[in-house]
Amino acid sequence: MRFTFPLVAIGLEASMIALFQFFVEYEADQNIAQQLNTTRPTKMDSFLQLYPLFQDVHVMIFVGFGFLMTFLKKYGFSSVGFNLLIAALGLQWGTIAQGLLHSQGQKFHIGIKEMINADFSTATVLISFGAVLGKTSPIQMLIMTILEIAAFAANEFLVAEIFMASDVGASMTIHAFGAYFGLTVAGILYRSGLREEHKNEESVYHSDLFAMIGTLFLWIFWPSFNSAIAEAGDHQYKAIVNTYFSLAACVLTAYAMSSLVMHRGKLNMVHIQNATLAGGVAVGTCADMDIQPYVAMIIGSIAGLVSVLGYKYLTPFFATTLRIHDTCGVHNLHGLPGLIGGLSSIVVIALGVSNMSTVAMQAAALGSSIGTAVAGGVVTGLILKIPCWEHPSNEYCYDDSVYWEVPKWREDDIHSHKDEDQKQLEPQV
Amino acid sequence: MRFTFPLVAIGLEASMIALFQFFVEYEADQNIAQQLNTTRPTKMDSFLQLYPLFQDVHVMIFVGFGFLMTFLKKYGFSSVGFNLLIAALGLQWGTIAQGLLHSQGQKFHIGIKEMINADFSTATVLISFGAVLGKTSPIQMLIMTILEIAAFAANEFLVAEIFMASDVGASMTIHAFGAYFGLTVAGILYRSGLREEHKNEESVYHSDLFAMIGTLFLWIFWPSFNSAIAEAGDHQYKAIVNTYFSLAACVLTAYAMSSLVMHRGKLNMVHIQNATLAGGVAVGTCADMDIQPYVAMIIGSIAGLVSVLGYKYLTPFFATTLRIHDTCGVHNLHGLPGLIGGLSSIVVIALGVSNMSTVAMQAAALGSSIGTAVAGGVVTGLILKIPCWEHPSNEYCYDDSVYWEVPKWREDDIHSHKDEDQKQLEPQV
Amino acid sequence: MRFTFPLVAIGLEASMIALFQFFVEYEADQNIAQQLNTTRPTKMDSFLQLYPLFQDVHVMIFVGFGFLMTFLKKYGFSSVGFNLLIAALGLQWGTIAQGLLHSQGQKFHIGIKEMINADFSTATVLISFGAVLGKTSPIQMLIMTILEIAAFAANEFLVAEIFMASDVGASMTIHAFGAYFGLTVAGILYRSGLREEHKNEESVYHSDLFAMIGTLFLWIFWPSFNSAIAEAGDHQYKAIVNTYFSLAACVLTAYAMSSLVMHRGKLNMVHIQNATLAGGVAVGTCADMDIQPYVAMIIGSIAGLVSVLGYKYLTPFFATTLRIHDTCGVHNLHGLPGLIGGLSSIVVIALGVSNMSTVAMQAAALGSSIGTAVAGGVVTGLILKIPCWEHPSNEYCYDDSVYWEVPKWREDDIHSHKDEDQKQLEPQV
Repeated sequence: MRFTFPLVAIGLEASMIALFQFFVEYEADQNIAQQLNTTRPTKMDSFLQLYPLFQDVHVMIFVGFGFLMTFLKKYGFSSVGFNLLIAALGLQWGTIAQGLLHSQGQKFHIGIKEMINADFSTATVLISFGAVLGKTSPIQMLIMTILEIAAFAANEFLVAEIFMASDVGASMTIHAFGAYFGLTVAGILYRSGLREEHKNEESVYHSDLFAMIGTLFLWIFWPSFNSAIAEAGDHQYKAIVNTYFSLAACVLTAYAMSSLVMHRGKLNMVHIQNATLAGGVAVGTCADMDIQPYVAMIIGSIAGLVSVLGYKYLTPFFATTLRIHDTCGVHNLHGLPGLIGGLSSIVVIALGVSNMSTVAMQAAALGSSIGTAVAGGVVTGLILKIPCWEHPSNEYCYDDSVYWEVPKWREDDIHSHKDEDQKQLEPQV
Repeated sequence: MRFTFPLVAIGLEASMIALFQFFVEYEADQNIAQQLNTTRPTKMDSFLQLYPLFQDVHVMIFVGFGFLMTFLKKYGFSSVGFNLLIAALGLQWGTIAQGLLHSQGQKFHIGIKEMINADFSTATVLISFGAVLGKTSPIQMLIMTILEIAAFAANEFLVAEIFMASDVGASMTIHAFGAYFGLTVAGILYRSGLREEHKNEESVYHSDLFAMIGTLFLWIFWPSFNSAIAEAGDHQYKAIVNTYFSLAACVLTAYAMSSLVMHRGKLNMVHIQNATLAGGVAVGTCADMDIQPYVAMIIGSIAGLVSVLGYKYLTPFFATTLRIHDTCGVHNLHGLPGLIGGLSSIVVIALGVSNMSTVAMQAAALGSSIGTAVAGGVVTGLILKIPCWEHPSNEYCYDDSVYWEVPKWREDDIHSHKDEDQKQLEPQV
Repeated sequence: MRFTFPLVAIGLEASMIALFQFFVEYEADQNIAQQLNTTRPTKMDSFLQLYPLFQDVHVMIFVGFGFLMTFLKKYGFSSVGFNLLIAALGLQWGTIAQGLLHSQGQKFHIGIKEMINADFSTATVLISFGAVLGKTSPIQMLIMTILEIAAFAANEFLVAEIFMASDVGASMTIHAFGAYFGLTVAGILYRSGLREEHKNEESVYHSDLFAMIGTLFLWIFWPSFNSAIAEAGDHQYKAIVNTYFSLAACVLTAYAMSSLVMHRGKLNMVHIQNATLAGGVAVGTCADMDIQPYVAMIIGSIAGLVSVLGYKYLTPFFATTLRIHDTCGVHNLHGLPGLIGGLSSIVVIALGVSNMSTVAMQAAALGSSIGTAVAGGVVTGLILKIPCWEHPSNEYCYDDSVYWEVPKWREDDIHSHKDEDQKQLEPQV
């Protein structure tokens, strides 16, 4: 950490500035509009019209994802802090990576859609971050940000421009992609020393409340996420309405299932924090299609139900049998619901409800998203495993004190801040 | 809790899906607009224009109400979690109940006003939830959601379509209605075993800070609440401006009164969390009228003052003499200020400042709102009292551990998580 | 506190109501627009178009500034509570002060720009509040609100109307002004009894997480702050884009520097909470100029770097040598980055990149902002030093229990609520 991290961070920022200097320009169409004295809405008009939706997405990325991961009792600083760091780098690099691909290497303009897509591209990394939360260092996360967004941009280009598939809420290209990328990395970085229950891998009462801040802002603004890049007018409207009702339905089934699968019928905070959001993911691909609200509600209901079952049965199975430890359970919040999203779109198109794409192209998009994610995750995982990057020792996993000056007083342990720094970091073996 | 709760929740969600299938359709006017190539703003245009106001209201419902109730030291999970559950059911049922009434039983369309009204209808239940907070079970709250929104929709129809009264910010139809409905239910569910001060009915330092998250988001977005369904243009503008200044004035008098009535002039967090919002409630009915900003400020000032006095003197009187225990003091935040709102509109119209309605119709609306609330509250309270529904035993009131898996560590009591589950729930007697 | 505070608060509110009655009117142009049946956007149209940006700023003022200051372990109620009190008074008085200056003493209209400017004027006081946090009483803060906003309005009038300088994001008129005003007041109120490290002047784990709520909402909505009063169209667009990328760049350098200057390369929460925002301040003056995104990123990078260095080296120097104790380090978040903002604009204009103003006028604006701040701070500081105003005794600085009923249980000290009230307040000597 001593010098590597500052140098990597400053080097990356300097590179971003250089890339922006060469490739990024302002929009210019407002001048044209003024010359023509036209009343047709210009890009500048739509900028301000979409800006509130962009800001909703922005809140989801920084407050939503950031606080959602603060549920661990000793890892709140890292959750919300590294979330900010990853997203700040990611939105710059995402702008470049997506811009260059779509402009085929030419200079390109920054409009509101580019800003929304920049935020979107960070979401994939933040999802993957959830899978490896507490077991990696900030340098590893900066490297993952660069690699994952490159893979994301390539897959997104393939899905949108080559397959011309429909995925307005990005169930496949962001959620499934981010989840399977993160799970692959987690699998490669698996340490058998963390197999047993870790003393730090639990919440305290108030850390669970902090996490609910994240949950609620994600839940509230998800209709904006799913509609932000939809075609203006009817499609955007449908994406908002379908997501709104899918999420509401999902809450009911998530609560019901949580109570059903838990000891004595009690609710589990992990389920409530995460599974209530699965409806937003699962309705994403079909969100702007003419599916009717009640179908959106069916999709949401199924997602809430499947997500809780995933937390209860799949996560332990992954951790023990598959040797993939998924700290936040991103498979249940993003992976499975992302699959449901892709599959729903195939069913909807096969039934002739929508003709926005074809069954084959939707299947190709789903396959490509998962394939690229796994391939990208393997490469990234292997690079992150190179011993030159530090990572926290087993004992100090899920513990802010490795990377942060931590106040003397923490809820769970008055004596948590012993001078044991030398034990905390070790080179990987 | 074991099976009743999951079955009720899933049954309700299935019913919602069925009702949506039969009655709910998308808006369709955008096609017409495209055919006509018109520049007249269509419903789709106004959808995106009102969407930011809808999202403000959405934040108020889920973050605002949810966190406002987290002040209790051991009841944060339930406050924010059941708030989400109630609102998710409520917005589906509110869509149906209001839609069917206004369409007279026909299929109806979902636009942005319908989504705003769906959120509004949940607000009534969340207000009533505040009165019975900590003393009821989630099943009881699901039942209350269904019954209360039915009563709300009936009264709202009466007020808006029959009396044609003016209540843009819903001081009468939401705030007074929700408060008196909740107080009536609380009165019927009164338990003398809870008469004495309960060991759990208090805050800890950080639970009061969590509650301030709720307060601030409610305070900030209240101008959107009061203007969201106002007539576009001048009325909407006035509703925003009047609410903005009423709330600002209310803060000053609430702080002054809190210091004045407390021991040694110290401020009380309960007053600050709640009474600073009374100005938003009280100006609601007159918000879009031509009352001038300084009159809005007078209304806000009075509301802040009355609300603090209510917390200091009325709440204890209600609890002891009237045998109505009001956990969050909703009477002071919603009841009294709602009355002030209705009465203000009567004065404003009687003085000829506005001709948006008549004195008689405003009085009828106020009477109808309170009457329907009390009648609906009596019916609901009696149904909730049926012994088949569980509710927390006196000892475990205001305690999450009855319904939630709670982490070992909680601020106020390291040993709070004893294995005493069998004592927690009891059938009502 | 007993009677002075309530009387001052109510007296101020009564004065505000009187001033509003004499000077404030609604906008009226919507009627004209209707008569003309014009398609030209009217003020009412732009009202609703700018309203989401206003609400973003509103969140920054009340949640952003409020929670940013909750990092102190025992001063969360006061931070978020007095922030609300100051801002509620400030927005009323700011409306009057700015309105009267621009209308030259005539009646004036309230539109969305006036509401945004009212929120802006409160920001100066909240910045200064950060410098004296924990060492002053609420009455002193009410007085400072009145005096500082008067000085702010005078300087803003000078900068905008006389110098016609360009400062769209108010780096000079709000941030530098607020910081140097606050530092001057802090210098005059300096107490040598507080020279040594105070036992309360530190955070606990969860107070640092509460502060991150403030940081993130400030960070997210800063593009709205810098663009809210920009000229519609191209300028507003550029202000948003430049601020977005400046902030992202700032995060990388702030993290890098924090790790570089701290013991063993660990990150410091104070730096992350504050220095990540410096890019928003520093790009403010140039935000709507044609500087290209990569230049905005350079400005942001420098600001993040300088801000962390300020926290590490300047704040201790100020406290010991200059006898200016700056509780929140507002010099590093607002003062230095505000200077960078003003100087950037001078460089940008000198290089001919923008012709929105002249070098001389920008320099005059910067000089005027700092000069007025220091002069206003001297007068305010001396008035606040008059012994009739109470202030907390040295021992009870940074402690809510002087002004608030505090729950028995607080993280850091189970026995913090002793009955020692008589020691807490003392007249100034």
